[in-house]
This record gives sequence, C-alpha cells and structure tokens, in this order.
Amino acid sequence: MTYVAVIGPGDAAEGSEAAVRAEVVGRELAGAGAVVVCGGRGGVMAAACRGCAAGGGTSLGLLPGDDRAGANPWVTIAVPTGLGEARNALVVRAADAVVAVGGGYGTLAEIALALRAGTPVVGLGTWEPVIAGRRDHGIVLAGGPQEAVALALRLARERPGKAG
Amino acid sequence: MTYVAVIGPGDAAEGSEAAVRAEVVGRELAGAGAVVVCGGRGGVMAAACRGCAAGGGTSLGLLPGDDRAGANPWVTIAVPTGLGEARNALVVRAADAVVAVGGGYGTLAEIALALRAGTPVVGLGTWEPVIAGRRDHGIVLAGGPQEAVALALRLARERPGKAG
Amino acid sequence: MTYVAVIGPGDAAEGSEAAVRAEVVGRELAGAGAVVVCGGRGGVMAAACRGCAAGGGTSLGLLPGDDRAGANPWVTIAVPTGLGEARNALVVRAADAVVAVGGGYGTLAEIALALRAGTPVVGLGTWEPVIAGRRDHGIVLAGGPQEAVALALRLARERPGKAG
Amino acid sequence: MTYVAVIGPGDAAEGSEAAVRAEVVGRELAGAGAVVVCGGRGGVMAAACRGCAAGGGTSLGLLPGDDRAGANPWVTIAVPTGLGEARNALVVRAADAVVAVGGGYGTLAEIALALRAGTPVVGLGTWEPVIAGRRDHGIVLAGGPQEAVALALRLARERPGKAG
Repeated sequence: MTYVAVIGPGDAAEGSEAAVRAEVVGRELAGAGAVVVCGGRGGVMAAACRGCAAGGGTSLGLLPGDDRAGANPWVTIAVPTGLGEARNALVVRAADAVVAVGGGYGTLAEIALALRAGTPVVGLGTWEPVIAGRRDHGIVLAGGPQEAVALALRLARERPGKAG
Repeated sequence: MTYVAVIGPGDAAEGSEAAVRAEVVGRELAGAGAVVVCGGRGGVMAAACRGCAAGGGTSLGLLPGDDRAGANPWVTIAVPTGLGEARNALVVRAADAVVAVGGGYGTLAEIALALRAGTPVVGLGTWEPVIAGRRDHGIVLAGGPQEAVALALRLARERPGKAG
Repeated sequence: MTYVAVIGPGDAAEGSEAAVRAEVVGRELAGAGAVVVCGGRGGVMAAACRGCAAGGGTSLGLLPGDDRAGANPWVTIAVPTGLGEARNALVVRAADAVVAVGGGYGTLAEIALALRAGTPVVGLGTWEPVIAGRRDHGIVLAGGPQEAVALALRLARERPGKAG
Repeated sequence: MTYVAVIGPGDAAEGSEAAVRAEVVGRELAGAGAVVVCGGRGGVMAAACRGCAAGGGTSLGLLPGDDRAGANPWVTIAVPTGLGEARNALVVRAADAVVAVGGGYGTLAEIALALRAGTPVVGLGTWEPVIAGRRDHGIVLAGGPQEAVALALRLARERPGKAG
C-alpha cells in the first residue's frame, strides 16, 4: 500500500484554487488505491479528504490536538496526536511521497521535513525555497492535480525501500 | 466510530494466553465496528491485528520507529511515528477506551497514561498498581476477552464527549 | 555531568511528606553536582526545583504546554515542549537515573518508561506494580531522601554507557 | 531570562562563514545573558555552543536521538529527546526568538515552524522562501552576527507575553 500526504493551508477557502486542486488530488489518489495522509483539519486537508471519500478511498488525519472532534468530517481514521505542530513531522514520516498544494508556513515546514528525510515532494502552486539567490530544486513541480498524483505515485514507487 | 486500543507485551509468544486473548479481543472489536488501535508491532499487538483482520475490521498501528517495515502484517493502516516510546502517549490519546492484555513495562506506561487522561482501561491478566499498600482501582477487571470488549465499548460510549 | 529526574505528583501539597522529601532530594542532588530533571510544574516538581536552587544547583523543567509561564519559579532552564503528556517520555530519556517520590498516574507512567528503558528507578513511598499476584522488583526502594540520592547517583554511574 | 535559538546546518564546516558567524552569535548571546537553544549537534549548533561557552553563557541542546553522547562538547545542558526530526518543533517552542545562520532543510523547517508560531526569526545568509513569485517577508534580515543578536533580543523582548 502506498501512503501519499496532501499538505497545504488549513485556511484555504472552499472553492479556492488550492482547495479545488486538493480535492482532485484526493480523489485521484483514492482511485489509485493509495492512502491519503494529512493533518486532518480544514482547508486543503478537508478538500483532500473529501475527494478521497468521493473516490471510495481511505484517509488518515493526524491531528495536532487531543480531541478527535477537531477532524474534518471526511477523514476515515482520525488520530488526535496531542503534539501540536510537532505532528507535522508525523505527517511527513507517514508518507511515501508528499503533494504540496498552495502554502502556509506549516506547509513550508512539512516540505522542508520531507526534503530532509528524502521523501519526494511534488508541488502545485506552492513554496519555492531560495538560498544564496538560487532556487532550491528539491520540489518537483506539477502543472495540475492529475500530473501531481502521477508524479507522486511514481516517485513513491521508485523510492528505495519505503513504499511496499 | 469508536477507537479501542489493545495494549500488551510485544514479545508475547504466539499461542500464549495473552496472544490468544488479544486475538479474540481484536476479532470482537472488528465485529462491533470499532477501530483497533495499537503499537503496530508483534506479540499482543500482532495478535489483536490478526483477530481484527479475521473479523473484517480496521486496525491502526502507531509504530515507534521511522519505517513502516516494522509493522506486523495484519495492520490495516501503519504509521511510523519516529517518536520511540513517546508513541505510547499517542496510542492512548487515539483511543476511546483501552484493553490491556498481559503486561510489560510499556503496557504499564500506557495504562498509567490512560488512567491519567481519564480514558477507561479494561484489564485481562495485567498490572495491578499498588500504592501505600493499597491496590489502585482505576483498572476495570474483566474475566475474559468477550467481557473485556463489552466493557470497553460500554465505557467508551459512556465517556463524556470522546467517542462519537 | 549526571542528570537525575525527580518525579512525583504535581498536586502534592506544600509541607506534605512527598514535597518535603522531594525538596531534600533536590538539594542533595545539587550538592552532588547533578542536574535535576523534572516536569517543571508544581507539587513534587516544584519542591525538587526549590531544593535544587537552595543547594546552588541547576534544574531542567520539561513542561507539557507551549508556554514557559507554566513553570514553577525555581526551574533554572524551562523548556515548553508542547507535547502534553508525551513529555513524560522526555523526562525519562533525559535522566541517567530517576527518583520517584509519592505517586500519581503520571508518575507511574514515568516509572514504567524508565524501567522499560533500563534507567534505574529509586522509589520513596511510590508505586509498587504487581502482576500475576507478584510484586515487580524493578524499583529500588529507599528509606529516605538522602539514601534515595545516594542510590540514584550510584546506579547512574554504574549504568553502562549513559552518564559520563 | 530570554531564550534564543541558533539554527543552521549541522554539517557546516569549521571555519566556514556560517560557523564563524554562529560562534559570534553564541558569544554575544551569552554576553547578553540569554540562554542559547539549539539542536545540540555539530556545524552551526556546535559553533553557537562554543561561542556561548567562551562567553560564559548557558546553552541548551535538544538532541534528536536517545543518547547524550550525540551532543557537541560545548553544550551546557544536553537533552536527548528521542523524537528524531520532530525535535525541531521543540527547539522552536523553547525559543523567544530564532537566529538562522546558513541553511539546510532542517533549518528551513525550523524557520517555518517559528514563523507559524509567531516567533521572530532573524536571518544571516539563510533561506528566502518565495511563493507565487514573491518573497515572503517573515524573516528579518541582518547584516552580521552582532546585528542579528541585537535584533533577536529586541524582537524577543517586544514579543507579546513570551519572554519574561
């Protein structure tokens, strides 16, 4: 089974470009039989879970708080970690690849943790980290949600020893 | 959905009393539609997941390490937390009730964390914490696995504001 | 440098036996040049830090919340972990030996985590875990705070490869 | 007491610009009476701790592993968290302000977590996150280590309700 994290801002409005794309990403991942991993809250996370549910898939929401009540209604398995923002590290660890849609600072933290762990990151209108005047090329850019999913699944499969 | 943790020693031998009981607990929880939460490894955890799978249910394994490869083969959703033994706190937080079968020190830590959080703990041949010469009565004792599951589900349901 | 955790209930009243003993433990550890590790809050933790400060020592408080404001006023270095009760695992990991004074469920969780990690635990009027009708002998019992400190320092020193 | 995190790549070579700057930052923070918080390992972390020790200050190293042996020799208080990269969140939480010197992906994760938490971040030759073609202005740029320390201390002091 392949686990793909969908990360992005928790305050993306319904109908925003990020939310619309995340919903397609969730649905396509479900169609491919992958588990959608996310932070379990609103915005991009809720959109990805909604898409996943529409596609008949399973989503895993790793919540920052102590209470399952904070989960969006489309999460299949909700895990209240009680770790606050340290749960970002768990979202990344649980994933064989990451799709980043849009971006807030939490998204940037998760992108960075994934790149550090060697987990492939596919970006859709997200952060482009620059250092010493040069763009870092760790994030694989996708033109749309279907391409993002295809890339994420391929990179997860090619990753040495993780997806199985 | 109700989430019930099944905790117990990771080194319980196949066929041991603890493993046999944990397998029945897992199967009965699956039959009741509850998600089985555990540490995702061997012994009692593997037995509970195997029972859950036999009953057609869903299990969630919160692994201590960084790698999904450490999960037993019956876990439905495996989450490599990378937190080491701090993941015990996550097993407890993710559960609306806990069934403790047998016991090692990790089991004792989880029992204590559950009692501290006010999460009901049902015991099957497990620890009996004593302080100042008196047995603590926080753990509800069950005579067998079916009774343990019935108690855990009832206590989870009666718990204010957690299971929903 | 040797790090010794002092654990016990956060609601032990000032002047209670546990608080009085913890204060002596903190002072003696400071006198021996050890760092006092604790959860940084009230009760036994505050008493140990007060004793440590009186003895001119250094204490480290690993707080469950996000905010240093939750620390008792005698902590030298306060670390808001934001991990909730998962910080218990950090208190234990940071220690070369543990002195348990009195007991609540959080204390029991820390004792169990220490025993699991092979970290020596010295007990002063604390839990006695019983399983299958027999008392577990993992905790080394002390008759008073001075003896507890002497035992903890000796066991920390003898522990293979940790204190140094 | 004010706590300032010094973050940067663990593999910065001795004598590199990042290491030289981090050492000055550590020494200046010690001179100002601030506690230096870091990840406790090598590179920028070791340089900051060495500078802090030279300035007679106190440093706190929050290590990713289980073992104090992984700390650099200049850390005053070493805490083996056992959380892996999730300890990045702890470094940020423990700080009233952050100075980022140079950058690897772990540094980027810590910058993002700090910006998310509203903790001031001062940058010295570090990441410049770009989104939708525009540079994010969350990081306050400094021209040199002395200016970075002055900025960090001022921003920590001005921060509502954290440093005290």
